[in-house]
Amino acid sequence: MKKVGVAILGLGVVGGGTYQILTEHREYYQKTQDVDIVVESVLELNRERALALGVPEEKVASNIAEVISNPDVNIVVEVIGGIGCARDFVLAALNAGKTVVTSNKELVCKYSHELERAAKRHNAGLYFEASCVGGVPVIRTLLDGVQANHITGMMGIINGTTNYILTKMSNEGASYEEVLKEAQKLGYAEANPSADVEGFDAAYKLSILSSLAFHTKVPFIKVFREGITGIATEDIAHGKELGYALKLLAIGKQSEQGIEVRVHPTFIRKEHPLAAVNDSFNAVYLTGDAVDDVMLYGRGAGALPTGSAIVSDIIYAATHSENKYSTFKNNATAEKDVKFVNDFSSAYYLRLTVADKAGVLSKISAIFGRYGISIVEMIQKANENGQATLILVTHETKELSVRNAVSKINALDEIAKVESILRVVA
Amino acid sequence: MKKVGVAILGLGVVGGGTYQILTEHREYYQKTQDVDIVVESVLELNRERALALGVPEEKVASNIAEVISNPDVNIVVEVIGGIGCARDFVLAALNAGKTVVTSNKELVCKYSHELERAAKRHNAGLYFEASCVGGVPVIRTLLDGVQANHITGMMGIINGTTNYILTKMSNEGASYEEVLKEAQKLGYAEANPSADVEGFDAAYKLSILSSLAFHTKVPFIKVFREGITGIATEDIAHGKELGYALKLLAIGKQSEQGIEVRVHPTFIRKEHPLAAVNDSFNAVYLTGDAVDDVMLYGRGAGALPTGSAIVSDIIYAATHSENKYSTFKNNATAEKDVKFVNDFSSAYYLRLTVADKAGVLSKISAIFGRYGISIVEMIQKANENGQATLILVTHETKELSVRNAVSKINALDEIAKVESILRVVA
Repeated sequence: MKKVGVAILGLGVVGGGTYQILTEHREYYQKTQDVDIVVESVLELNRERALALGVPEEKVASNIAEVISNPDVNIVVEVIGGIGCARDFVLAALNAGKTVVTSNKELVCKYSHELERAAKRHNAGLYFEASCVGGVPVIRTLLDGVQANHITGMMGIINGTTNYILTKMSNEGASYEEVLKEAQKLGYAEANPSADVEGFDAAYKLSILSSLAFHTKVPFIKVFREGITGIATEDIAHGKELGYALKLLAIGKQSEQGIEVRVHPTFIRKEHPLAAVNDSFNAVYLTGDAVDDVMLYGRGAGALPTGSAIVSDIIYAATHSENKYSTFKNNATAEKDVKFVNDFSSAYYLRLTVADKAGVLSKISAIFGRYGISIVEMIQKANENGQATLILVTHETKELSVRNAVSKINALDEIAKVESILRVVA
Repeated sequence: MKKVGVAILGLGVVGGGTYQILTEHREYYQKTQDVDIVVESVLELNRERALALGVPEEKVASNIAEVISNPDVNIVVEVIGGIGCARDFVLAALNAGKTVVTSNKELVCKYSHELERAAKRHNAGLYFEASCVGGVPVIRTLLDGVQANHITGMMGIINGTTNYILTKMSNEGASYEEVLKEAQKLGYAEANPSADVEGFDAAYKLSILSSLAFHTKVPFIKVFREGITGIATEDIAHGKELGYALKLLAIGKQSEQGIEVRVHPTFIRKEHPLAAVNDSFNAVYLTGDAVDDVMLYGRGAGALPTGSAIVSDIIYAATHSENKYSTFKNNATAEKDVKFVNDFSSAYYLRLTVADKAGVLSKISAIFGRYGISIVEMIQKANENGQATLILVTHETKELSVRNAVSKINALDEIAKVESILRVVA
């Protein structure tokens, strides 16, 4: 039986989960995968934590050199996160010919070209299923499950923290600030939540997934990004009334116009399978030219689900010696001949406060007409102080047209103000 | 670049779709997979059909020997179906050292042990993603995506015809017979629909998927099977009122009690992701001890979706030389030490017609009490002729207890009759 030695860099939540899965399933993998996977080394500054998890004292390394020079270590698991020492450690491991399995989305998003180069030079493998959507095998699916397809589109709920917050806001009518505070208390959101709530985390993952789906490097800076910090509870309620759920969607498209990648809060019809993905659950909805629509759903984070992705990568690395790298030219930047769509189209939801008097609606309509924006649905609600709230949903139109129309409306002598603009998946 | 020659046996719906995908994507696979896949031969009795699809005349073979003796053919795709000539042809291909990709669930379910033996003897591969759930890569996920897990359970909507029928019955309140007739007219159901509506098709797939998930042969005869032919529209309506959707579920479980596999119409809470899988869509909901719940959703049938699974298998076979066989002892029968659960437990929905007079309910309750069956919910509705309809949902209990209680109730001097028994996922 093949024996594989593993080192784990970092015994935080995911590292601890990975250690637990590997030790508890050792016999199971011997029996079902014909491979003996042994944790040979862990690197964890907090030795107490390592010992509490049951790591034998002699396996707790005190520095990266000790891990890398250990001849019994074949695969190095990096679950430190960030692009500081994680990047150095991963490069050191690859340069020593060790295969790397990582959950680090920022590292893979920004430096996969560098890592892959090092891996190839030393015939090491590089696997990162755990970097996207926790335990849900979306990368494996793209590489080995639907690879017969031109992937034309993907839509994902790929950040658990923001989905938890939006679900709570929707169910309880609570404000963003209240729910964020609660999420922080429960450990669902970080003390500094900006990576999640500003959409960075989702954008890293979208960059990785769309690069694999579209077979070309889709750099992070090409991703249009808007977070959920400005979301008003009343817009979620209005949307619900119109039959929509609000989700932070990561959207990737490939067409003759080019590649389009964006992360932003989005209204989606409540009949769509993604609309039912609630709380901290994640899902990715893929569209291929042959397979049509496929959705993968599951837990996007957590010690054991993310550990499942890491250990599945370890087993894959141990039992498949081919197919270790990207199937596209993995550079820091996009290839020269690849077009990106900047002036994207979408349907829009707009909320306006307007003066409740004759002639206002016709002025607004005229502005929409001038920019070629047509309205699908409109609700007017009486308000206080002689004002009314106007909710509009548009047909698909250019983002730029909407922005122009909105600035013209806001310039209308204080008789109308656009309070919210949200994109809608038609 | 590696060149791979493919032969397609049968140019029906799926064979035609496979041919189309392979020819239209040839350049795409060269670019993205570094492999040149060429259709070298097709076997189709209806030559006209082959020519109409654009197959060059010289590539239309007239018998299986011609295909198998063709040295340019590396991979044989079998999409004939059934266990007649399909079995002979597949064995002949494997015995000639050709790798086989098949969509044939009945063949894989009943003869995978025989096929795998032949494949191993001749160092050929055997792939069958397309046999289960069309284009949805559920087999790839079990083998290469969540293999770090003990899979403890799976629930699937894995037959499109029955899901189409049940969805229509639910949405339109139409009878089984009406909807079946319409489905046959539209080509969603066969002229002889029994393979679908009696649950055979789902049972074949459940046998295959649970064998892979549980790493041991789960033979077809171990699958408890009940179809949808007896479903009354009014039960769907009553269930809806109680918050359930009716689905033909394929359920597999593995626990210390043993393996439990069953296919039957099942009420599932409308909040469950499977409840929203409608029309001809399919989905499989897997539970692993690390990854927790994962759902895969997509089109379970059709020329291009199933073709996507076949071509993805072809690419996998061409680019992965390892991992060609089951990771369990693949015999015709179950291994001796594997236990199967026969007296399974479930929650139940019962519909009774009862005499609308004092004392009846207490008699019925007494019988349930005697068999240790406790009731979660009950609705009584006045009926014609001095009768009432009683709808009950039970807590989880043994199937046998319910059957015994029901026969005792039916023996109650004609004051009560159990009209329907349906299982419920609690």
